[in-house]
Amino acid sequence: MDDGAKEQRDPAWWGRRAWSLLSAVRARAPLVQCITNLVSMDIAANALLAAGASPAMVHSLREVPDFTPRCDAVYVNVGTLSEDWLPSMRAAASAGRPWVLDPVAAAASGFRMEACVELLALRPAVVRGNASEILALADRSVAAASNFKGADSSHESVDALEAAKALALSSGAVVAVSGAVDFITNGEKFVGASNGVPMMQKITATGCAVTALIAAFVAIEPSDALVAAACALAIFGLAGEIGMESSKGPASLRMHLIDTLYCLDEETVTSRVRIALRP
Amino acid sequence: MDDGAKEQRDPAWWGRRAWSLLSAVRARAPLVQCITNLVSMDIAANALLAAGASPAMVHSLREVPDFTPRCDAVYVNVGTLSEDWLPSMRAAASAGRPWVLDPVAAAASGFRMEACVELLALRPAVVRGNASEILALADRSVAAASNFKGADSSHESVDALEAAKALALSSGAVVAVSGAVDFITNGEKFVGASNGVPMMQKITATGCAVTALIAAFVAIEPSDALVAAACALAIFGLAGEIGMESSKGPASLRMHLIDTLYCLDEETVTSRVRIALRP
Amino acid sequence: MDDGAKEQRDPAWWGRRAWSLLSAVRARAPLVQCITNLVSMDIAANALLAAGASPAMVHSLREVPDFTPRCDAVYVNVGTLSEDWLPSMRAAASAGRPWVLDPVAAAASGFRMEACVELLALRPAVVRGNASEILALADRSVAAASNFKGADSSHESVDALEAAKALALSSGAVVAVSGAVDFITNGEKFVGASNGVPMMQKITATGCAVTALIAAFVAIEPSDALVAAACALAIFGLAGEIGMESSKGPASLRMHLIDTLYCLDEETVTSRVRIALRP
Repeated sequence: MDDGAKEQRDPAWWGRRAWSLLSAVRARAPLVQCITNLVSMDIAANALLAAGASPAMVHSLREVPDFTPRCDAVYVNVGTLSEDWLPSMRAAASAGRPWVLDPVAAAASGFRMEACVELLALRPAVVRGNASEILALADRSVAAASNFKGADSSHESVDALEAAKALALSSGAVVAVSGAVDFITNGEKFVGASNGVPMMQKITATGCAVTALIAAFVAIEPSDALVAAACALAIFGLAGEIGMESSKGPASLRMHLIDTLYCLDEETVTSRVRIALRP
Repeated sequence: MDDGAKEQRDPAWWGRRAWSLLSAVRARAPLVQCITNLVSMDIAANALLAAGASPAMVHSLREVPDFTPRCDAVYVNVGTLSEDWLPSMRAAASAGRPWVLDPVAAAASGFRMEACVELLALRPAVVRGNASEILALADRSVAAASNFKGADSSHESVDALEAAKALALSSGAVVAVSGAVDFITNGEKFVGASNGVPMMQKITATGCAVTALIAAFVAIEPSDALVAAACALAIFGLAGEIGMESSKGPASLRMHLIDTLYCLDEETVTSRVRIALRP
Repeated sequence: MDDGAKEQRDPAWWGRRAWSLLSAVRARAPLVQCITNLVSMDIAANALLAAGASPAMVHSLREVPDFTPRCDAVYVNVGTLSEDWLPSMRAAASAGRPWVLDPVAAAASGFRMEACVELLALRPAVVRGNASEILALADRSVAAASNFKGADSSHESVDALEAAKALALSSGAVVAVSGAVDFITNGEKFVGASNGVPMMQKITATGCAVTALIAAFVAIEPSDALVAAACALAIFGLAGEIGMESSKGPASLRMHLIDTLYCLDEETVTSRVRIALRP
């Protein structure tokens, strides 16, 4: 997996790559099946549409055999996990399409952690979580009461670098840790993506929405999920940065972020995406 | 069904009719039970409230016997269909209230198509879909992989005119096909409604929201669902047109559309609604 | 329960109290488990985040034993009640954490009324509803067709004062009745909170969102749920008032309300909160 390492040392390469992937999403409108939590459906669908993808919130087990094989990617998110949805998640993840996992609040319960571990074994292309989620997942541990913040992280992304590496090596997935800087690794390479603004944490389900966007980028570039994930994270963060310039609080930021995602142009993306290969 | 054909040749008649129906929704606040998909609940409820109706998202089979008979109309949408919701849809559609069907992504699976066909037999007043959905429903066919775009249409509305006519005649429902021009037919008359802007396609669940609005209009005018559907589609499209004037992308359009729907006045509606009886 | 009655006759006391509770929510970010209706999830989560709390939409019965004990408060809302969610509501309400009930459209069906009555017996700290909901709950009566408006109220809050008192005394809960003036009572004291603007009724799930906020305030002040509820209602109403200054309709009000909730400062809260102990 050292292919491209040399060119990836050039920051400008990433800007061009991000733009080329976003352009391809717009041109090809990949169909992304989302089995996601109930809170995130609106923002995830709107983020996918704004980026040019075609979202499909389809969660019935009865529909997976007909529907999932026709999708370009699958997005599974356990944020409002329940027993009746888990079989559909398993089935969609097993349908042979590239898929992405968001282990929201993985440490919330034994039930949720077991579901995440089971889904991980179905070889997602990418797992994206915050530091607390990745740390818990690497440990397979349910949170202690002391510092548990539900879907919010009580750790910095940099604290989860070793956990991300271990999780990537054990699962075969690219692991992305969101935070002030997003870290993305396949267990060998590490990439940092540093677009974004802190207020995005104050909008519910922005993490879910960016994971949906990662699925759309993976649909375009299934053979290099590391690059796809890094570019999606940077593009979404950049939309937040630019949106922030016109925002007075989290609700206007949400609106401006989506509007900006729709409007991003080549010059903005290539000049402002901040992704770097880490030594 | 040729009643009113003469006056309906006058475009100004439609503007007055649309205003009178919107005014009646505002004055009478019809109670609309919505059994709709999980993505659309927020925007459908907000569109109904902005138009003056009273939305009620009630989907439990246990509540239908007590609740549905007290509603003024029922709205059923299969966008996130699951086996446990289908019996409630059947029961609510059978409760004797005028009801409206949105066959979102009807071709997504055999399960969904069968559900739509079964619901169609329960005589909705109106079926509203995009061209791909109406074509699939008229054919009772699950989509081929080649051009399937999930909930998005891969056809123009004009391509579905014959299918809409056949579906209207076979089902007894008014059939509305959304698109650049919306076509509405009872199998004999054809009406075109051409308000709206393309960016509305980039907001998730605008189709679901306008079908909810159709249900509110049908609650006011159950005996002429063709007129009710055409006016609701034009009013919603007009709100999008005016909202577009202040919008920078799909998220601000969503906000301005709902605000405009709330604020529409008589002069704006009567002068800007574009509905025409087609020869 | 006459403690504090003297100081509570001073309106300025309430402004300081509201600010101190909001500041504590921001500082301590209480984790609030929400088992709420499908329509309200987005706005409830965003309102909690904007106020500084940490929302967790967790509804699976499988997760309650691990998760609920670690929460600071629980919020239960029956707006889209179904048989499969009711056991989780019961379990979360019984987990020993302070909890708050929103009996949305309690009179919608016998099933829903029975569920509300059963949940009431599990001793919520606060019950918040509109006048029609509180009247129905006090009577345990399913609505007659004549004036039923679903989740909307067909009564003024002042009409439900006696019902609120009776319900508070019989249930042991603080009862809050939303309306032009919000009334809050523990059966002995009555408090009126009069912030807010009528257009908030035209945004879906604002009532659900403010009940979520009450849960966050109760997490901070579990021993005085009357004060917590009154302050949360006033703060949310104040955010609506200030948001209204920049709004053109219900969708922009929704955005500005959440933005304002995030930005409220001490001077604004202490000078503009309008809460009064009633004689």
